[in-house]
Formats: sequence, C-alpha cells, structure tokens
Amino acid sequence: MADSPNCDLKSLSPLQLFERVTEQGEKVRALKAGKAPKDEIDAAVRMLLSLKLSYKSATGQDYQAGLPPRDLVLINNGTTKEDEDFVDPWTVQTSNAKGVDYDKLIVRFGSSKIGTDLINRIERAIGQKPHHFLRRGIFFSHRDMDQILDAYENKKSFYLYTGRGPSSQAMHVGHLIPFVFTKWLQEVFDVPLVIQLTDDEKYLWKDMTTEKAYEYAKENAKDIIACGFDINKTFIFSDLDYLGASTGFYKNVVKVQKHVTFNQVKGIFGFTDSDCIGKISFPAIQAAPSFSSSFPQIFNGKDNIQCLIPCAIDQDPYFRMTRDVAPRIGQPKPALLHSVFFPALQGAQTKMSASDPNSSIFLTDTPKQIKTKINKHAFSGGRDTIEEHRKYGGNCDVDVSFMYLTFFLEDDDRLEQLKEAYTSGELLTGELKKVLIETLQPLIAAHQERRKQVTDEMVKQFMTPRKLAFEF
Amino acid sequence: MADSPNCDLKSLSPLQLFERVTEQGEKVRALKAGKAPKDEIDAAVRMLLSLKLSYKSATGQDYQAGLPPRDLVLINNGTTKEDEDFVDPWTVQTSNAKGVDYDKLIVRFGSSKIGTDLINRIERAIGQKPHHFLRRGIFFSHRDMDQILDAYENKKSFYLYTGRGPSSQAMHVGHLIPFVFTKWLQEVFDVPLVIQLTDDEKYLWKDMTTEKAYEYAKENAKDIIACGFDINKTFIFSDLDYLGASTGFYKNVVKVQKHVTFNQVKGIFGFTDSDCIGKISFPAIQAAPSFSSSFPQIFNGKDNIQCLIPCAIDQDPYFRMTRDVAPRIGQPKPALLHSVFFPALQGAQTKMSASDPNSSIFLTDTPKQIKTKINKHAFSGGRDTIEEHRKYGGNCDVDVSFMYLTFFLEDDDRLEQLKEAYTSGELLTGELKKVLIETLQPLIAAHQERRKQVTDEMVKQFMTPRKLAFEF
Repeated sequence: MADSPNCDLKSLSPLQLFERVTEQGEKVRALKAGKAPKDEIDAAVRMLLSLKLSYKSATGQDYQAGLPPRDLVLINNGTTKEDEDFVDPWTVQTSNAKGVDYDKLIVRFGSSKIGTDLINRIERAIGQKPHHFLRRGIFFSHRDMDQILDAYENKKSFYLYTGRGPSSQAMHVGHLIPFVFTKWLQEVFDVPLVIQLTDDEKYLWKDMTTEKAYEYAKENAKDIIACGFDINKTFIFSDLDYLGASTGFYKNVVKVQKHVTFNQVKGIFGFTDSDCIGKISFPAIQAAPSFSSSFPQIFNGKDNIQCLIPCAIDQDPYFRMTRDVAPRIGQPKPALLHSVFFPALQGAQTKMSASDPNSSIFLTDTPKQIKTKINKHAFSGGRDTIEEHRKYGGNCDVDVSFMYLTFFLEDDDRLEQLKEAYTSGELLTGELKKVLIETLQPLIAAHQERRKQVTDEMVKQFMTPRKLAFEF
Repeated sequence: MADSPNCDLKSLSPLQLFERVTEQGEKVRALKAGKAPKDEIDAAVRMLLSLKLSYKSATGQDYQAGLPPRDLVLINNGTTKEDEDFVDPWTVQTSNAKGVDYDKLIVRFGSSKIGTDLINRIERAIGQKPHHFLRRGIFFSHRDMDQILDAYENKKSFYLYTGRGPSSQAMHVGHLIPFVFTKWLQEVFDVPLVIQLTDDEKYLWKDMTTEKAYEYAKENAKDIIACGFDINKTFIFSDLDYLGASTGFYKNVVKVQKHVTFNQVKGIFGFTDSDCIGKISFPAIQAAPSFSSSFPQIFNGKDNIQCLIPCAIDQDPYFRMTRDVAPRIGQPKPALLHSVFFPALQGAQTKMSASDPNSSIFLTDTPKQIKTKINKHAFSGGRDTIEEHRKYGGNCDVDVSFMYLTFFLEDDDRLEQLKEAYTSGELLTGELKKVLIETLQPLIAAHQERRKQVTDEMVKQFMTPRKLAFEF
C-alpha cells in the first residue's frame, strides 16, 4: 500500500474503504503482537488513522469494526450527514439526548405522521378514547392506516401481525410496548392476531443452537401471553416450528424471495458478500406473515385479508420491502403503525438492550431491583444542585424517568401535573423517580403474577395452528 | 467510453467486462432500432466486437447474453483454458464431440473414479452382477461409496436420495437415467428412497407460477413412479408441498444456510448481486434431503442415517457444498454416485434439453416419432459415403446412436458385436440406427403402458409423508 493512502482512495467504494481500514487494523494488531520496532508501529497507526478519516469523509459515519457501511442512499434519500440518526433493524444511533428525530425519520422512510385527524378518526371508528400510546405520539407514524379504517367502516375486517426475536429468556419493559398496544388494538377492533417469534433469525445471527432459540421462543411466549391476549383470537408461532406446519407459509416465502435481489437486501439491510445465505434470505421470512395465505388454518384458505402491523420503527425496512413485493405477487400491502424506541435508562440516544442488564428494567426484576436501577441509572433532566433545580427547573425532554412515565402512567392529568412541577423546579429528580418506581413496581408485579399463571399447556394451545374465533 | 476500449479493460473483473459487453450490445440494438447513421452503428458494432474479444481473453469463455462469467477458479482449480469443459448445474459445455472429458472432471471436482475394484466389491456385497450403467462407466465417479459398503457389510444400512427439477410436463429418456439406476440400487440394497421434486427451484428460475411448478411436479412424479419404485419404500416430495409438512426439513435448511456465505455460493454457482435471494438461498433446499432428520416420519426421528445420492455429475456442486457443511452441523456427509451426461441427439457436446423437442426422445413420443427423430437428428459417426464407410469404418466414440445403445441395450455381447461391426465398416449408420429404434420403441411403449396405470391416488400415496417399510 502507498505511503499516502488518500490520493488513490477517492475512487474506492465505502465497502472497499471499510475493508482497507479493517486490513490495516489487523496489520497494526499483528505488529504490536509481534513486538515490531516502534517507528514501524507508529507508521502503521498513522496510516490507520488516515484511512479511518477517508472512511468517515466518504460515508459520514465513524468506522466501526465488524459493521460495514450501509447503502445509506436508499434509507436517507441521499442526505447523509454526520449528525443524522442511524436506524435499521440492528442499530439505532443518535447523538441527541432527546432521542431520534422522528419527524426527520418519517420523511426519510417515506411514511406518514399520525396526526390529530387520524387519531380522531380512530376514536370515531372504535367509539372510545384512543390508547395513550396514540394520544402521546408513542405510536407516531403509519402506512395506509386510513385504508384499514376505510375498510373497517365498510365492515371489512383485517388481522394484526406483530413479532419478536427471542434472544434471551428475560424480556425488558421496552419489549412490552408493541404487545401492550397490539392487545389494545385486538380488543377495540375485535380482530385476530398472529405473533411471529423469529427463533430462526436468532439462530442465524447469534452463537446459539436451534434448540436454544426455540426454547427462548417458548419462554418469551409466556411473557407475551401474560399481556392478556385472547386465546381464541391469537396465534403465536416459532418460525422453526411453524414453517414445517403450514401449507401456505413457505410458498409465500419463495414468492417474496423471487422478487427481491441481493442488491436490494444489500441496500436495505447492509448485508455483505461475507454474510451467510440464511441472513440474506431471512427478510422473506419476516415478510410472509403479512399475507393471510401464510395461515390457511386461521383464515380458511382466504388469501386477500388485509394485514396491520404494529411495530417499532426500526422494523420498517422489512415491511417497506414487503410492501414493494406485495402487488407483484398478487397480495395486498400490509398497513403499519410505527412506535418510537423505548429509551435505555442511561438516556434516549439508544434503544434498550437485552444484553446489558443495567440498561433496562426487566420483567423479572424485583421491586427492590426496580428501585435501585431507577435511582442509580435513570438519566436525569434535573439540575446539578437542589438550589439550581428550584431556580431553573428540570428538562422533561431528556429526563428518562419522565419519558418512562409517558409510556406507563395512564392518567393524563397526573402526567401533565408532573411535567409542570418538574419543569418549574417544584418537583425534584428524586421525587419524580419515586413516582416512576411506584408506577412500575405494581405493573411489573402484576405482570409477574399473570405470567405465573401461564402454563405450558396454555403456551402449547396458543402455539397450535388452528381456526381462530373469527369469520371473514 | 473511450474509443479504444482495450487499453483500460485489463483492470476490469470478468463481471465488469460482462456488463460492458451487455451495455454495448444494448447500445447497438438501440442505434439500429433508432435507424442511426450507418457509420455510427458500424463504430458501435466494432466496439462491441472488441469488447467481446477482451471478455473472451479474460475469461476463456465466449460472451453469452444473460450468462455472466462464473468464478471458474473454484471449479477448475485455477486451470481455466479455452478448451476446458464447463460444467455446473445449469450449463454443460464442451468442444469435444466425444463429450465432456470425465477423467479431467474427476480431477477438477476432487471425486474418485469408479474402478474395477469398487465394481467388484459392489458385486460381492449384493451377490449379483452390477448394473450395466456401472459396468459401462455411465456411473463413473463417486464420493465415499466405499464407506457405504463398509457400513453395509457391517449390517448398517443407508437411504437413497435423488431428485428432479420439474420444468415441463414431458420428460425425455435422459431424465430416466438416475431413476433407472436408483431403482436398481433400491432393489439390490433393499433401502428406502426419497425423491425431491424441486418445484420451488423451477418457480425461482423460470417464468412460472408456483401452481404450475407443482402441477409439473405431480406430472413428473407419474413418470418416476412408472420406473417401478417400491411404494412401501419410496417417498416422492415436492418442495413447495413438503417444506410445510415436515418438522425437520426447515431446521436443516436454516442450519445449512447459516454455514454458507454469499461469497461461497457465488464461487460455486456463479450467482451475482442481481440474482434474487431465492436463488441465492436455494442450494440449502437441495442440501437438506441429504440429512435423515429432514424426514422424521420416515426415519422415526433418527438423525444420523447415512445418505447415498445417485445423480448426474453436474449436480455435484450442490453436494460438495453439502458435504462441506455436514460435519459443522453434526450430520454425516452424504455419499455420491455420479453419472455422465446423456447426450443430445445432435451430439455429445451438450446435455439433452427438455426445451428443444428435437434434441431429445421424449417419454411421450410415438414409435413413429422415435424413428423419425433418430433417423433425422441422431449424429452419426459414420463416413460420408457407403464406400468410404465400408473401407474405413464408423466411429462409435462420437456416434450418438451407439452412445444411446450403451445406455439402453442391456445385452453386453450384442453391444460388443455392434461396436465391432460398425467400427469395421460392416454395419452401416442406417442399420445401427435401426437397432437403436428397435431397442427404444418397446422400452418407451412399456414405460407409457406403466405410466397409464399410475393413478392420481398412487401419486398421492407416494407423495404422502409416512413411515416407510424399513427398520433402522
């Protein structure tokens, strides 16, 4: 490689640059491990830094080992900037303590904002007050929700589809958001629901056996069932299990797979040539439940029933792809309702992570653990001293305890009071945290109580392919 | 593009060159369609020819529209030469009228030749004369057949797996070769057999609905059943159908998919970034039946039963891949028996093709059609005039009628007599063709008779997942 790497690097693609940085990093490690002369190591390190700089100027992203550059053009509509949020099914990154800029995300993803009009229309359709997740902008974006309502108002029904990747036994409170909301949708619209547990995905992405992934799927099913889904209207399935038990699922998988190229999944998901063919073809597995013909037992073989998918916005790339393919395989496009990300205790810059126990409140946490975690880790929007706080007030926009309360405190008036009191400095951080602790403790205790009552027999029933109590 | 394309083409990869040729071809067509000035068209054509020359010198292959260059290094062990045969699951090309050089193929593929020792050992194991396909080198190569025999001699059994891509309703006689041989293996070793009909593959590769592909699968199953397989020991399955009816198949598919990268299938099968993700992940579907756990109904859930795959040598890339993955997913490697290609009537340079009716004798042909096709199209190794033929004799090595007789005339002595008589000039081409016609007509009539007796009910029975009459 030439001494000055930048002169010939302009012509390289981001992926080629990425590979150069990776190679150079390995070279530096090898030199250090081999105790090479200091000036040789220094030269290699300078070259590495220079390559990283080229990489950043070409991609607008910092180099991250093992994370090749994404084809951002497709996601960002060409507006790659250093301060842009990064969102895909595996990574959520923002430099802003308020979290991802969701209005920008709507523009970039090409979805529609859930505005007052739509919320009012939902209220009229269901004849009751919409869920606080809708009222408070937690579900903030949609695709074709108006079509779902058009059809619903004309007595044409639909079904719900949501899912989860069962990566570990314990779920955290953030994982509950789509399920809590989906349960509400199931109740108010009175529709059937399918829940996909992508144990195959977890097997493909993680160092895990198929047996372990399936075991996690069944464990997670218990937490999902504990949310209170109607057993007569809900089918929960593991991919590893159900693909071999449906006459329709694999046919839809193959149909989607025929209409999506490697170039496309490379652009959408950032796959590379070194990825296994299982990852590359997986998006079709997540797409298939969007089509009612994947569930012949549930829908009596009907293949044109409209699907509505409530999910976090990071799952949208899968369904943009699905909606692109749907008309080409003679299927209706699924509609979507997108939620914001549930913030980590440490702040809204990232999603919660099941792999970091202190970033999350787990559904298995004791009242004491909940109290300790919130007091110790919840990022505060309060001031440095009580005096300053009383004088200038706290900042609810970045305060994680307040954010959590918008998710879990159902009483609108109470929430508004807390906001005012905290912003004015009347309420201290410790007091706000106390409200959150007292809100979460009984919620999680109640969840644990319901979960205890979920038997293996119930899991089996929920996971058995069968006709659901609904006529289309 | 510069006027002299060759100066900057040396740095391009074969795929980039391929794309340049394709673009230039489109440009020429556009110019011609737009009735551009003659000199402009001429210049574009010169450029096209020059690009094709560069392509050929870089790849050793002629440019073929729609057929991107393959990564020959992996298949050819780096010995790409212009006169090299090209063999993969979709293309068989040789410039030699005797057909592909199979000894070279064995070296390139890294398989083992079926020699006299192995044939004698098979004879001892089964206590009868081996099939003439083995004696005459029609099945000429193998992988681990000695291990199958080791185990068999120690009373440890195995199962057979073969398959077919159902691309059209009518099968030709060449399609029968693996089935005729597999039936013989099933009889002499008394083992169960699974036959995969890759209707999903045909849907992915062709302009065809899943319904049509499945219909072809069922039609082809009739011809396969007419070969005389034991219904109690044979399971025939369509992928589109069976993947949704097996608790084990999809799990093996995902396991294979986790252990094969896009780089690998690109090297083995020549896939490109523009291929659909269905094609890219399909090799795992053809791999899965090599593992007994894909058929829990047949093998009572046993997952370690050795598999033996009789197939034409062009299918070997799938199973090289499978054998590479097998130990990494805790499964035994399948053993293989490879056959030569069945030559087209026009000569042994290519395989027969179901899409060219005159390249093949179809199983639906009437006695008259058989006679006409052989007389009109079968490439002759005879001399230009009767006088010359009498004087110098014919060449059996390139004579297609004689090649066909090695496949279908069971009587060794008669075949030897014909060879001598033809080579010496005693037997004329017309007479040799007559022997072939009289051999094939009754064989095909008998096949048609047996096929008529195959009812839809029998097809359904063969295609129902069930326990086979065999204990392991």
